[in-house]
Amino acid sequence: MILCDIGNTFLHFYQDGRVWKEKANKISTRHFENEIFYISVSCKSEESFLRCFPHAILLAPYIELDTTYVGLGIDRKSICSVIADGIIVDAGSAITIDIMQDGSHLGGYILPGVGSYLKLYSEISERLNLMPDLSLDLDLMPQNTKEAISLGILKSIIGFIQEQSCGKKIYFSGGDGKFFSKFFKNSIYNEILVFKGMLKAVEKYREIHS
Amino acid sequence: MILCDIGNTFLHFYQDGRVWKEKANKISTRHFENEIFYISVSCKSEESFLRCFPHAILLAPYIELDTTYVGLGIDRKSICSVIADGIIVDAGSAITIDIMQDGSHLGGYILPGVGSYLKLYSEISERLNLMPDLSLDLDLMPQNTKEAISLGILKSIIGFIQEQSCGKKIYFSGGDGKFFSKFFKNSIYNEILVFKGMLKAVEKYREIHS
Repeated sequence: MILCDIGNTFLHFYQDGRVWKEKANKISTRHFENEIFYISVSCKSEESFLRCFPHAILLAPYIELDTTYVGLGIDRKSICSVIADGIIVDAGSAITIDIMQDGSHLGGYILPGVGSYLKLYSEISERLNLMPDLSLDLDLMPQNTKEAISLGILKSIIGFIQEQSCGKKIYFSGGDGKFFSKFFKNSIYNEILVFKGMLKAVEKYREIHS
Repeated sequence: MILCDIGNTFLHFYQDGRVWKEKANKISTRHFENEIFYISVSCKSEESFLRCFPHAILLAPYIELDTTYVGLGIDRKSICSVIADGIIVDAGSAITIDIMQDGSHLGGYILPGVGSYLKLYSEISERLNLMPDLSLDLDLMPQNTKEAISLGILKSIIGFIQEQSCGKKIYFSGGDGKFFSKFFKNSIYNEILVFKGMLKAVEKYREIHS
């Protein structure tokens, strides 16, 4: 069995604890004979995926979450469905921050991802078209444009997550999740959270279709 | 006497306490006979400006600030030069946050401006191409994508400024300065701060050239 989480930039695959990613325009079909379950937040990538795997099963109807949030991305829903209490941060091309309490989803925020910030600065002014240094000490007082931008990005994102966490455990995933998790004591980085939710949904699917 | 602060988007003018802005490609030359002093952070707009006002006097050499920051924009330098203690926030196409203490500039940060964030989200994903609602209550827990983006932008910027202020007085200027100032008790919005610094520099200029 293979799981696939179709995002805006990449398709993330999971098989027996192993994960890998592929670009939507270059999907490998070597896993053609396996049973494939998927979720998607990108219509365009989903089309490419379904051309390769026309029999793939959409898991969205089997992911359950107690929430009043309208339009919660199915990837966020999948992760939240396996965490009863805590802050869930998925740091990719966008950074989503969801709050779970007693098994209920209270709400969530969306920030631009680090990569998007970089692009953004260069569009504001040529003078801001610099490659930020994300390894800077957060306590440094910026003394040039590069430091001013780098610490502007880092501290605004980190401060925001800190403020939302209120001491709760923070679960990081996504391409930049590992990087951000090191700034928080009470945090875990787990790249397979979304697949944990999908595995739970596969069980639900099997229950119904057995 | 007229003062002109040449920015990335607009040229801001000042005459006898009155301020107005003009686009670089549509500069009115009705003030042609007046003595004009200027500062600039945009080479391109400065060229257009100098074609209209070839005898304008550059004030940059007369703005003094005790700082070790390399490459501080002359507009930021001008504002900081008239504030001995406090946080200076210029909220325009970019948001600059400078820290002054005992007449010295300790350093500063650069965040994207609100308008830039809006453009950014639409570039990450079609689903995020929404017009945010910046009038939302900050205590609201977002329950849809629009609220998640709006409060993501607002709270990350406001939280960042709050964290830097450490109870010091906050001086806001720039197109979005008035909007942001209302979120802070210990704050002032003053759109002529940059011109105050320029007036001080004009005095310096007159001293030297009298």
